[in-house]
Amino acid sequence: MTQARTVAEIASYLGGTVQGDGAKLISGLGTLETAGPDALTFLANPRYASKVAETSAGAVLMSPGGERYGRTAIEVANPYLGFAKLLALFYTAPHEPLGVLPAAIVDATATLGRDVTVYPGAFIGKNVTIGSRTVIYPGAVLYDNVIVGEECIIHANAVIRERCRLGNRCIIQPGAVIGSDGFGYAPDGRGYYRIPQIGIVVLDDDVEIGANSCIDRAAVEVTRIRRGTKLDNLVQIAHNCEIGEDCMIVSQVGISGSAKIGNHVTLAGQVGVAGHLTIGDNVLVGAQSGVPSSLPANAAYSGTPTMPHKEWLKSSMIVPRLPELRKTVSALEKRITELEAILKQPRQEN
Amino acid sequence: MTQARTVAEIASYLGGTVQGDGAKLISGLGTLETAGPDALTFLANPRYASKVAETSAGAVLMSPGGERYGRTAIEVANPYLGFAKLLALFYTAPHEPLGVLPAAIVDATATLGRDVTVYPGAFIGKNVTIGSRTVIYPGAVLYDNVIVGEECIIHANAVIRERCRLGNRCIIQPGAVIGSDGFGYAPDGRGYYRIPQIGIVVLDDDVEIGANSCIDRAAVEVTRIRRGTKLDNLVQIAHNCEIGEDCMIVSQVGISGSAKIGNHVTLAGQVGVAGHLTIGDNVLVGAQSGVPSSLPANAAYSGTPTMPHKEWLKSSMIVPRLPELRKTVSALEKRITELEAILKQPRQEN
Amino acid sequence: MTQARTVAEIASYLGGTVQGDGAKLISGLGTLETAGPDALTFLANPRYASKVAETSAGAVLMSPGGERYGRTAIEVANPYLGFAKLLALFYTAPHEPLGVLPAAIVDATATLGRDVTVYPGAFIGKNVTIGSRTVIYPGAVLYDNVIVGEECIIHANAVIRERCRLGNRCIIQPGAVIGSDGFGYAPDGRGYYRIPQIGIVVLDDDVEIGANSCIDRAAVEVTRIRRGTKLDNLVQIAHNCEIGEDCMIVSQVGISGSAKIGNHVTLAGQVGVAGHLTIGDNVLVGAQSGVPSSLPANAAYSGTPTMPHKEWLKSSMIVPRLPELRKTVSALEKRITELEAILKQPRQEN
Repeated sequence: MTQARTVAEIASYLGGTVQGDGAKLISGLGTLETAGPDALTFLANPRYASKVAETSAGAVLMSPGGERYGRTAIEVANPYLGFAKLLALFYTAPHEPLGVLPAAIVDATATLGRDVTVYPGAFIGKNVTIGSRTVIYPGAVLYDNVIVGEECIIHANAVIRERCRLGNRCIIQPGAVIGSDGFGYAPDGRGYYRIPQIGIVVLDDDVEIGANSCIDRAAVEVTRIRRGTKLDNLVQIAHNCEIGEDCMIVSQVGISGSAKIGNHVTLAGQVGVAGHLTIGDNVLVGAQSGVPSSLPANAAYSGTPTMPHKEWLKSSMIVPRLPELRKTVSALEKRITELEAILKQPRQEN
Repeated sequence: MTQARTVAEIASYLGGTVQGDGAKLISGLGTLETAGPDALTFLANPRYASKVAETSAGAVLMSPGGERYGRTAIEVANPYLGFAKLLALFYTAPHEPLGVLPAAIVDATATLGRDVTVYPGAFIGKNVTIGSRTVIYPGAVLYDNVIVGEECIIHANAVIRERCRLGNRCIIQPGAVIGSDGFGYAPDGRGYYRIPQIGIVVLDDDVEIGANSCIDRAAVEVTRIRRGTKLDNLVQIAHNCEIGEDCMIVSQVGISGSAKIGNHVTLAGQVGVAGHLTIGDNVLVGAQSGVPSSLPANAAYSGTPTMPHKEWLKSSMIVPRLPELRKTVSALEKRITELEAILKQPRQEN
Repeated sequence: MTQARTVAEIASYLGGTVQGDGAKLISGLGTLETAGPDALTFLANPRYASKVAETSAGAVLMSPGGERYGRTAIEVANPYLGFAKLLALFYTAPHEPLGVLPAAIVDATATLGRDVTVYPGAFIGKNVTIGSRTVIYPGAVLYDNVIVGEECIIHANAVIRERCRLGNRCIIQPGAVIGSDGFGYAPDGRGYYRIPQIGIVVLDDDVEIGANSCIDRAAVEVTRIRRGTKLDNLVQIAHNCEIGEDCMIVSQVGISGSAKIGNHVTLAGQVGVAGHLTIGDNVLVGAQSGVPSSLPANAAYSGTPTMPHKEWLKSSMIVPRLPELRKTVSALEKRITELEAILKQPRQEN
């Protein structure tokens, strides 16, 4: 499947330096534990440095100056990034466009760029625009007037509702829903009157959306996710949210309506964010935290409700000891009462 | 796109009162910040009352007697509800039925009412009944013997499994699953024996289900959601649950099997509800709370496990101060020991 | 619909013992509350034993030696398991294979076993292998090189991505996604470089996956779920996880990358599990808990972060009383200060 390359060729591809046998032939990649003599592995976490001594790998990608235990090594500044690039080099087949395949349903008014692939069973509505080299998998549904950029991948059974817009190189995993109606209702005295959700969703370039994640269209204007932000699976983004650039939104996070998230924000798994608040740039929120109000930039938070992460570490360690703390307090109370009895008895009855 | 109407016409449509220029022509809607001179906006939250002075909007929908800063206003009892109705009036095109489109898969035994729309790629099984004016989007799958009422909207790739029943005016967002098997297994000594889930799901009139939400069929009888209740995205309703009327179930809530939820209950985002319990009418449960046992009606609760909301507000404010509290207790202990040393030394060794 | 059977026939089918009228004809099943004179019910939970006196059921499935209040009873060691088997006996129609139906999209290179059913609108990619008697519902999408075993059920709009493998008797509920890309990115100084996810997902025999659940493919090797494990709806399994045999993963649980879960583990609803940790065999984790690090086998845990379940029960009962505890501590502080004033004043100023 994969084409063999010399260590020297690989080093040159990554802009790295060979230590050892540059002529050695590498035909694949593996972990420190599983890579064989014709495979390359990598060391990114210094914690595992000693495993280099034991690996059977033919070569190791590592930081400059690391102990290579006599192995052939390629030194690069960021071995993890280098390994990711080699995964693409070795294992990703060049994309071959297939055109509009039989049993694909493409409205006559849709505009398709060059080398677009539309699989059987995909549905492309009226006036949809699809950029060049984009791939639409089976069962994906693009409602009327959707715009999708170039080199996007829309996986099977993903849904993009009317008028929503995707930039270039967006990847939508299977089952994700872009542009479902926002959850907006006005009580009318008897029950709830549905507020029409007439806005859209805009995903900028390089945004990726995980499997079965949901992004609601805005009530009136735009729910927006900016360049480079990645959403994991089963994430909920409510209507009118604005998410900044290069954020990492981990699985099962829920963000309520009209929240504004800055750039380079990381929300760990199962975090909940209340509506109409602002999270500053470079914020990191720990798993399962609940964010009830705005969070200043450049800090880490945890807990429900959120507090600075370090405070949470301390207070969450005390929670299991609360029974002990209460016992201590009760014991102190008795001792004080005893002291009072000794000291005050002569002076006061109570 | 939208048709212009005079302020007086709009006031008459809503049953409101004009203050100012009733002849002014309005051609759209916007927020206090974004509406231009030919657009109408609304003031629902008194917190933003001062923004009326600065808005560029041609007219403001507001409560009777509010300060209108010289703007043309339409006074109505519920400006938010009025605005919702105007969104529908201005921006919602009248529905045009399209019939059964080519490449829709409709079993010959299915019964379709008048003016039904079935998009290409939708699947309608044996003996399915679909009420008049209902719309079935591409990729939606209705298993055998499903019954769907009138004026429903079943969005793309939603799935309704065998024998489940929907009332009138139900809306199912993309990817939602109605009638998946309940999670029921009987340990048989070696592993788990699957308990057949032979019941169904019944959604009453005006129920709406969010994108990628899941409602499991009952083991034997009915999982039921009553009139007017709305579910947000990614909600889980387990088998045998009964949800009352006009409830709001916010995103990522999970309700375990056989739970009974009253009327007008609001469960905020990511709440978890244990099985075989009852939540009374008009209960409000705060975000991320965990409900381990029944909750009496007409009250607000929060926390895991849930407690009255006001208690939770107080106790959750102390959690970040637990380290300080523990330090205080340690200091008190020392001071008591010191006092005891002074006071008791002559009398006892310990 | 269902065929009537005598109590004696049913007892014989289950290997149980008749107490009372073995000739009585039973034509269906019901609960203690709803079963009529021609229906059989069951008593599994001793808590409901007194309901046997009031049931209208024609017969009761119960444990040997239970009080039957004069009812006809069938005694079996595990009444719940017995009832599950009778549900299958009475209500599950024998499966009739339908073959590849019109409008199913099956690539010419796919290999289908005997008696496979492929519904209209299902998509079967290149070189896919499907075992005998497996059923593929409408809108299900199997990417290229997928292998599915015998007697599997792939429900509507489920997606199985390239090269993933399912054992025999697996059931995939609607909308579930098997093999979506793992959430792996390497920071490259400007944004995130997508790490190709070239691994697969392997589900062993008798694994069941709930509606709209997501299982990510491994980065390089295999995300694996072993024999007999059941996942509820909306569960997230990240890349490289290994889940053992006969686990119960309840709805909305999220398991982070590279976690190893033992055999017979139960994770209750909305639990979150961090990455790169190990959970031992027979562990039970309570609902909404957050597992930050490895958990030893054969124990129950709860809380965020997790602690032994019994400790959590105690400490979580104190949380609502924290305001009271703090008040107590403040009062003690005053009393100590007062004591100190009395006792120390003559000796020291401070």
